[in-house]
Amino acid sequence: METTTIESPDVKTAIASLREKAPFIYGLTNYVAANLSANVLLALGAGPAIGAAPGFTAAFPAGAGAVWINGAALMSSVTPEALEEAAATAHTAGTPWVFDPVAIGAGAGEYDEILTSLLKYKPSIIRGNASEISALAGGAGGSGVDSTLDSSEVIDTVKDLAVRLDAVVAVSGEVDYICEPSGRATSVMGGDAKMPQVTGTGCSLGALSAAYCAVVDPFTAARTAHAAFAAAGERAGTRTTGTGWFAVAFLDELSTL
Amino acid sequence: METTTIESPDVKTAIASLREKAPFIYGLTNYVAANLSANVLLALGAGPAIGAAPGFTAAFPAGAGAVWINGAALMSSVTPEALEEAAATAHTAGTPWVFDPVAIGAGAGEYDEILTSLLKYKPSIIRGNASEISALAGGAGGSGVDSTLDSSEVIDTVKDLAVRLDAVVAVSGEVDYICEPSGRATSVMGGDAKMPQVTGTGCSLGALSAAYCAVVDPFTAARTAHAAFAAAGERAGTRTTGTGWFAVAFLDELSTL
Amino acid sequence: METTTIESPDVKTAIASLREKAPFIYGLTNYVAANLSANVLLALGAGPAIGAAPGFTAAFPAGAGAVWINGAALMSSVTPEALEEAAATAHTAGTPWVFDPVAIGAGAGEYDEILTSLLKYKPSIIRGNASEISALAGGAGGSGVDSTLDSSEVIDTVKDLAVRLDAVVAVSGEVDYICEPSGRATSVMGGDAKMPQVTGTGCSLGALSAAYCAVVDPFTAARTAHAAFAAAGERAGTRTTGTGWFAVAFLDELSTL
Repeated sequence: METTTIESPDVKTAIASLREKAPFIYGLTNYVAANLSANVLLALGAGPAIGAAPGFTAAFPAGAGAVWINGAALMSSVTPEALEEAAATAHTAGTPWVFDPVAIGAGAGEYDEILTSLLKYKPSIIRGNASEISALAGGAGGSGVDSTLDSSEVIDTVKDLAVRLDAVVAVSGEVDYICEPSGRATSVMGGDAKMPQVTGTGCSLGALSAAYCAVVDPFTAARTAHAAFAAAGERAGTRTTGTGWFAVAFLDELSTL
Repeated sequence: METTTIESPDVKTAIASLREKAPFIYGLTNYVAANLSANVLLALGAGPAIGAAPGFTAAFPAGAGAVWINGAALMSSVTPEALEEAAATAHTAGTPWVFDPVAIGAGAGEYDEILTSLLKYKPSIIRGNASEISALAGGAGGSGVDSTLDSSEVIDTVKDLAVRLDAVVAVSGEVDYICEPSGRATSVMGGDAKMPQVTGTGCSLGALSAAYCAVVDPFTAARTAHAAFAAAGERAGTRTTGTGWFAVAFLDELSTL
Repeated sequence: METTTIESPDVKTAIASLREKAPFIYGLTNYVAANLSANVLLALGAGPAIGAAPGFTAAFPAGAGAVWINGAALMSSVTPEALEEAAATAHTAGTPWVFDPVAIGAGAGEYDEILTSLLKYKPSIIRGNASEISALAGGAGGSGVDSTLDSSEVIDTVKDLAVRLDAVVAVSGEVDYICEPSGRATSVMGGDAKMPQVTGTGCSLGALSAAYCAVVDPFTAARTAHAAFAAAGERAGTRTTGTGWFAVAFLDELSTL
């Protein structure tokens, strides 16, 4: 399988392009991760707006360069209807959107059904941890928002889902794997063991994948976002020991990539 | 036009007064900015409480030293009715309140109408970026939560709105401009280019403007809040290169002003 | 009264046990404190999930190692019914849960009634600041989320409540006091004057108390959480002057305890 890094030429081009074009990116996400997700997008040059105030889900997905929908947005007042409206509006307008089915398969059946119903609006990228990807494919889920599988255990599932859902599918873990419907796949290495100890890093990776969809194709977008996270995480990890300083250093490294 | 800085005598007095009196300040804001807004108020001596749990909007605006209402509070379960109750309660009780019409004019008509309807409860201060101030005056809005205008392009609009709405109106940008209904205006310079790359700084500036309303008149309050942000941003900017460390240093500088 | 520190043998055992077992902990809390609470739990080894998306409150409290319910969760779309379902599910499943009655007694009667009604589901630990503990016992409340009493003024109230509610009751302040129904009580000293200037520290202490309930008895859990906060706060305080760096250092110290 090919490998993608921050030095891959098309990744470098995508990073420069996002900073230059500074597109408006609209997201529905949960309030645990919203602040970090916005700061990650700002750090890399995008202009994020988050949330489902009255009128937002009908208007913003059409005007945005890309959209991300994090299932756990349902934990605040984002209704299933608002989530659906955002996905449908993006789909109709031709705006690429990223789907992050946080905690799917963890035991909340009603929640899982709402999330699964969004697939018909054809997300450009689906990203999750190994348990979420497994659950989306009909297998076992994880514990809360955490994975009980290693990303390497779901490589075949990632490939199958990419074909079946006609979308780029990305799984994050110690090694990330990304596959597009054509079957082309890549791995991304790097990062740091402290990354999953900072809440919202996975959710922010979904947001950043959307941002790059505004400037490049979805496969390149996913590769760029994952490579940026891997590089910034690795650099921040070498400079810090605890999770407090690591989280700050990680954002800092993203902003100076 | 006069200029206000952190060294202006009445600004210094206001900063000391907030630390001494430590008033309770109540806010309705969005969850992306809520954490930073609370930390900014705590850093400068106020005691913030945020949110619209049952009974809060009817009780807290009357007992608080000041209130801030950030329109994007509508993105969580704060209903238009709760927003209105908070504004009405503050108005009736004579509690000064600050209005921050985040993202007004960005394309969500239903949202814009709800926000505009709050003006009848007479905010003491209205603050926003240049596109939001433009939209509030009937002109063009921005892109999501970001401005597509420079603050210098709306100086006349700021002055007109201050007279028309009988409120202090403040616009933030590379240079901030603040005008009161009498026509007296001031500019505030400083800050750092990294400030708009940290989510919630504008929202937190609205919260801080409210805090100072609990101890001084609204014009002095707005000048003090903007001067504090400009000074802390400038100092933090000289010590940091990326946005991660900048955000921490900015809060740190505010707490030791 | 006995004193608990980070060096107490059973505290050291509990800290090691949480890191080893990494239990799933489910919480309902407010969005101001949610991010810090999740990061605190991750820093000490637990796997948190937060929020009330459809189906979560019926499913997660039964599968979690422990639950925490922060009353201010009502400020977002967590309905009184969802709060009750979470508490009832935990109670029925025998999952220990921590109750944090934020801002009870501060003037919002409707809110206070909802919170009080949860006591019938028998929380294992109740924690708050001095005004909240006072209000829960029928006395005067505080100002917003801040206490107007010193923790030493409510020692007898803590003891009375522990017996009356058959729960461990903990009050935080310059000195923390923790009492169990048997009458056994302990104090915890340490921390730093900057801790209450960082929003969400008290809420996160409730979350952490829940996490330790998944691995030890509630009295040991509360003592461990408070001792960890006191030690990390004290260490972070000696290394920092402003609240920005303090907040980061505090989380960092927790992660390396």
